Amino acid sequence: MRRGILTLIVLIYLALFSFIAAQEKEFDFTKYVDPFIGADGGGYTFPGATLPSGMVKVGPDCNKLTENAGWDARGNIVGFSHTHINGSGGGCKYGNILLMPTVGGIKSQDYSSPRANEYAEVGLYSVDLIRYNTSVRISATHSAAIHEYTFPATDSANVLIDLGSFLSSYEKQEFVGSEVRILSSTEVEGYSRIRGGWNMSRAYTVYFYAKFEYPATSYGTWKSGKLFPNEKSQFDSNEKTGAYFTFNTKQNKTVRAKVAISYMGVNKAHYNAEEIPSWNLDMVKTNAVTAWNKILSQVKVEGGSEESKKIFYSSVYRIFLQPTNYKGENPLWQSNEPYYGDYHAIWDTYRATHPFITLLRPSLESDMVESIVDIYRYDHYMPDARTSNDNGRTQGGSNCDMLVADAMVKGVKGIDYKTALKAMLKNAEVPPGDDERKQGRGGLWDYNRIGYVSTDFERCCTRTLEYSANDYAIATVAKGLGESAIFEKYRKKASSWENQWNTNIENLGFKGFIWPRKSDEAWMDTSKFNVFASGSFEAPFYETFSWEYSFYVPHDMKQLIKKMGGKETFTKRLDTYFTKSFPGKRDDLLFYTRMIGMCQISNEPSFLTPSLYCYVNEPYKTAKIVRQILATQYNTTRSGVPGNDDSGSMGAWYAFHALGFYPNAGQDIYLISSPIFHKVTITLENGKKLVIEAKNAGVKNIYIQSCMLNGKPFNNCWFRHKDIADGATFEFVMGDKPSSWGTNGELPPSMSDN
Amino acid sequence: MRRGILTLIVLIYLALFSFIAAQEKEFDFTKYVDPFIGADGGGYTFPGATLPSGMVKVGPDCNKLTENAGWDARGNIVGFSHTHINGSGGGCKYGNILLMPTVGGIKSQDYSSPRANEYAEVGLYSVDLIRYNTSVRISATHSAAIHEYTFPATDSANVLIDLGSFLSSYEKQEFVGSEVRILSSTEVEGYSRIRGGWNMSRAYTVYFYAKFEYPATSYGTWKSGKLFPNEKSQFDSNEKTGAYFTFNTKQNKTVRAKVAISYMGVNKAHYNAEEIPSWNLDMVKTNAVTAWNKILSQVKVEGGSEESKKIFYSSVYRIFLQPTNYKGENPLWQSNEPYYGDYHAIWDTYRATHPFITLLRPSLESDMVESIVDIYRYDHYMPDARTSNDNGRTQGGSNCDMLVADAMVKGVKGIDYKTALKAMLKNAEVPPGDDERKQGRGGLWDYNRIGYVSTDFERCCTRTLEYSANDYAIATVAKGLGESAIFEKYRKKASSWENQWNTNIENLGFKGFIWPRKSDEAWMDTSKFNVFASGSFEAPFYETFSWEYSFYVPHDMKQLIKKMGGKETFTKRLDTYFTKSFPGKRDDLLFYTRMIGMCQISNEPSFLTPSLYCYVNEPYKTAKIVRQILATQYNTTRSGVPGNDDSGSMGAWYAFHALGFYPNAGQDIYLISSPIFHKVTITLENGKKLVIEAKNAGVKNIYIQSCMLNGKPFNNCWFRHKDIADGATFEFVMGDKPSSWGTNGELPPSMSDN
Repeated sequence: MRRGILTLIVLIYLALFSFIAAQEKEFDFTKYVDPFIGADGGGYTFPGATLPSGMVKVGPDCNKLTENAGWDARGNIVGFSHTHINGSGGGCKYGNILLMPTVGGIKSQDYSSPRANEYAEVGLYSVDLIRYNTSVRISATHSAAIHEYTFPATDSANVLIDLGSFLSSYEKQEFVGSEVRILSSTEVEGYSRIRGGWNMSRAYTVYFYAKFEYPATSYGTWKSGKLFPNEKSQFDSNEKTGAYFTFNTKQNKTVRAKVAISYMGVNKAHYNAEEIPSWNLDMVKTNAVTAWNKILSQVKVEGGSEESKKIFYSSVYRIFLQPTNYKGENPLWQSNEPYYGDYHAIWDTYRATHPFITLLRPSLESDMVESIVDIYRYDHYMPDARTSNDNGRTQGGSNCDMLVADAMVKGVKGIDYKTALKAMLKNAEVPPGDDERKQGRGGLWDYNRIGYVSTDFERCCTRTLEYSANDYAIATVAKGLGESAIFEKYRKKASSWENQWNTNIENLGFKGFIWPRKSDEAWMDTSKFNVFASGSFEAPFYETFSWEYSFYVPHDMKQLIKKMGGKETFTKRLDTYFTKSFPGKRDDLLFYTRMIGMCQISNEPSFLTPSLYCYVNEPYKTAKIVRQILATQYNTTRSGVPGNDDSGSMGAWYAFHALGFYPNAGQDIYLISSPIFHKVTITLENGKKLVIEAKNAGVKNIYIQSCMLNGKPFNNCWFRHKDIADGATFEFVMGDKPSSWGTNGELPPSMSDN
Repeated sequence: MRRGILTLIVLIYLALFSFIAAQEKEFDFTKYVDPFIGADGGGYTFPGATLPSGMVKVGPDCNKLTENAGWDARGNIVGFSHTHINGSGGGCKYGNILLMPTVGGIKSQDYSSPRANEYAEVGLYSVDLIRYNTSVRISATHSAAIHEYTFPATDSANVLIDLGSFLSSYEKQEFVGSEVRILSSTEVEGYSRIRGGWNMSRAYTVYFYAKFEYPATSYGTWKSGKLFPNEKSQFDSNEKTGAYFTFNTKQNKTVRAKVAISYMGVNKAHYNAEEIPSWNLDMVKTNAVTAWNKILSQVKVEGGSEESKKIFYSSVYRIFLQPTNYKGENPLWQSNEPYYGDYHAIWDTYRATHPFITLLRPSLESDMVESIVDIYRYDHYMPDARTSNDNGRTQGGSNCDMLVADAMVKGVKGIDYKTALKAMLKNAEVPPGDDERKQGRGGLWDYNRIGYVSTDFERCCTRTLEYSANDYAIATVAKGLGESAIFEKYRKKASSWENQWNTNIENLGFKGFIWPRKSDEAWMDTSKFNVFASGSFEAPFYETFSWEYSFYVPHDMKQLIKKMGGKETFTKRLDTYFTKSFPGKRDDLLFYTRMIGMCQISNEPSFLTPSLYCYVNEPYKTAKIVRQILATQYNTTRSGVPGNDDSGSMGAWYAFHALGFYPNAGQDIYLISSPIFHKVTITLENGKKLVIEAKNAGVKNIYIQSCMLNGKPFNNCWFRHKDIADGATFEFVMGDKPSSWGTNGELPPSMSDN
């Protein structure tokens, strides 16, 4: 009865939605999206099917996996699982509830197949499995997937459901347990329970319910590799279980299955399966396209190459893949607050991904920030990264602080900023203990006692720098709430990076670098450490080296420029950074990267650096380096992203700069770079339009010659969010030579201004 | 098929077991067990049905609950749930999967009933529900329960299954979610998910499967109080759900249900239900009696009053209620190690409960210690307390260290002591961070930097004292493993308590007390703190005051006696402690207590103090005070335990002293007190006999006049575990006056001896 009504409501909703969408839809922007861009070459983008913030991300899992996302250019396809994240390096996460069509005798292991004709578009992934002469198409709703397998004519067309399968590489996930229960010749349910992965999470459980369109001719289960034909159920003894269904495809070659998942229980998975009322995969796909167009159509670009549009819309698509909306799927506490997950990781996404979401969908960003506040309420720390309902891990600072500050300065409503400030203060004042990679601020005892993180702790330089920026975020929020004592305290602490600045280190003619320091205040010996030493979790600099991190004082560039010797030296130092080759072997850098001079644009700590010329009123230099990066580091191939996409981070970097500006996250500052399209019209969530015209923009015409904002000359190379929040029109004129535009304006604000 | 074989095996096993038991069973020792002893009056003992270490502890839950265990003398019975702990104060835990028989219309709330004729014996709890004129009997196997409800003749005899019910008081558990699914007119399954409670745990899920003997005439479900007749399923939307079954009892008044639980999944719950193959509750009860007799019959007492036997065997019974054996029920990781839970808390149980288990069942203690080592491997800290698969909370030290040391010095095999030492060092070296009540050692930065925990941290005095004892445990294990550097380091740290000793504090003529100290080494002002100030988590002394805690240096009594001014002053100080009334109101002490002078024997920090006279060779004083406590503080009533039984702690205190000795846990030392039975024969696990004869023992004859050990005169008032591990015979002669026995022997060892 209730289900009937619910289905009716869903259908009415879909009909209305289609109607409204049809009205709005002048154009299908998803045709510019290629989910495969960046899947290879270290981008690890997710090529499967999903909705915006979709819980189900159904896609292929491969058996030669190096890092995340399931898909890999190498190896065979193992099957199609329902949970993935996009773009991350580090140990794999998810890959739960795997289905695989096979032909012949049942094998509960080693059933993978080589592939052909792999293809993806928004809401659809398809492939041919060579070993089984079987074609696969999959699509997804928010909590469910539809699978369509076209078998050869056979009486042994099987669908395996493997609850012991999950993604694993180094920093690995570990199997915990599983159950399976066949309900009938068309229905099966159960769960898979996994722990670990990059975030070192406690066990998480993914429940599922699957239904086939037609009855199987036979079925069975397995446990720890042993088959149990006709046996309907396997209980959990911490062993791998699975089920198989065999179909006769001599008449009808197509076997379809709906698979719904839940993090709550199997009944909830049954309920979630109602998201797919029919067996029409194409209708599911069409609904996905409609949902994605609602976002993509907010940005209309004109001019620019087809390739750049493809890169742009694919980037915007990836920005909205995560965080995942888990509303109604929180197995940890009862709350009316929003519940998002798969912040993976905020260290990556606070810089550009979340600011882009705020630009297009402040209400969505509000939910995402309020979610981490609620996570603080019940899990005791805001996450710096979080997957599978568990915080972890941290990389540099407590950059969740940046999300809160960024939302506040941009006027995002609906966030409990008071509780958020408490959560930020917890980061700043309560050492997380135990594994300091999990959450909070590792090395905090040092930082609060001696003003920097000493070499007694890993990632010491990175931590001091990021904690300083995070402290400025705290000061910002405290100011916004009128908490003047907290503001004063944290504004002061935000200068802590200066304690890590060694004026005596000299390299390539530049003096003064961020440098590891012992707890007795002595600097680390240059014979034991050098300015190009880069590292991972254990090293003083996380994922990079001193040259790169010494530019990271986003909240007080004025003071940094002073420390570096003033405007001229600073400019030269940036020039050197972007042109001088990194002197070591590339292997010395631990991370996949295509370098521009010493800049690893694949790496988040470098994200803001190209825009820093704006802090010395040299925007044409920012334009030049940004355009160089866009042109040489991004393309439409499967290797078209310069490094790990990191939940849309590389995409967001592209998308902002393609519009012509880039945020200094946590502050209401956008730094202007070089718009690539002739015209961009952004429909803001409040209905107002942000129009960015760039007359003559082109491959060569990368330099801004002049700018009008709302019809008036605009000569600053930066602007504030409030300048655009209620709509605005920028009219840029572009040319092929640097101009004096923006070189005499007001400088962007820095903490030291006041 | 497999199930058939399994059932057969179970039946054969039960038959064999019964046969063997019949051979062994000269006597039913369970007739001396009254599960109701200590249920009232602050004892919070669990009166329901369970096996030794049983996972299912089925019993009544009452609606005026103050603390743990479900049962309360006040209020009505809400129903009968399947998970409980025994004897703890603090916020309630468990109370999951509640069944309740009712008559008439279905109410999903407010269905509780007054009670009459409440009765319990080993393996059985029964009661009459006045409101419904219905009688209830329940019994349990390890993972399942059988309920027998005798209704009036009616066509509306209901059984409610309430998945929204759980125990709650302060430090409360919170509801997270639930699901229910009726499979047929005799079967239902689902789960209840709860978080919080005293250990501040993350969410835990208890799955269940229930089966009725006969079909219901109708059934339905509910969600958030709304009834859904005939609707079979409710999915999890973080709401309270339940199911009801209605029976016609006009012909057959008895409705029986088997209910199995699991922490893994519903399939596992189905599997666990096979533990009860028939509908014969009395057979289930008989099997419980058999299982308990296996343990109880290891100790045969002769002489002594019927009352003292009842207290004694009920005490031994409670010792073996917990920790709970969760082997095969670990939803967090895959491991072949044992998996015990419900260490609640080790702060209580390391002192006597675990040593008693080691005495009777070293193989069980081995599993219990190895479990906490495995918990360290996967959950990163050994627990100091742990329920619902989550560590928490700590009270004083990291007393899990004491369990390891105690096992090692007593030669307990099968423990990975090397990993255990790592886990102990983690306690000692890695601050737990965040909520320092969760695990590890709070205030560790102080302790390791300045040698004591300063008043910057709560429970500072308690912590310094217990960390010192814990450090000696580390030294002990390091020594056993030949790790001499670690041994030296921790032997030294074990003197840290001296940094908390203020020689200037004087009270009742005694000088020198443990005293709160600031981080700058200054002592807390006596105008702000006094020697009788007692407190809870926030205070310097946890659950007690300086007089009591100043006696707690179990590993170095020699040094403490010296600090206190030598043997004579020490004796006087003990005398004063046991005779001088606590000068404040009793309300000044936060915990339920019946005081002997200033001694709160209900409180764990006092457990060892009556035996401390042995450290100055005055065992007759120990005998006197111990016998006074046994006689005045314990009886066979429902208020027959002096304070929270704390997982058998009060029971273990009684049981040891009834035998005539008491352990100094973590060291291979038993201090002799005063045996109460004429003869005790303990069958050790290795088959050897430990015989304790006490000629003339009686209410007045409490003083040892002489002792022979294995036929030779024995004049020390203490002995080592190795003296009894392979069997031994003590022959005491008792008299009504103190004698010189034991006053000239060798003193028990102290750290300072070496």
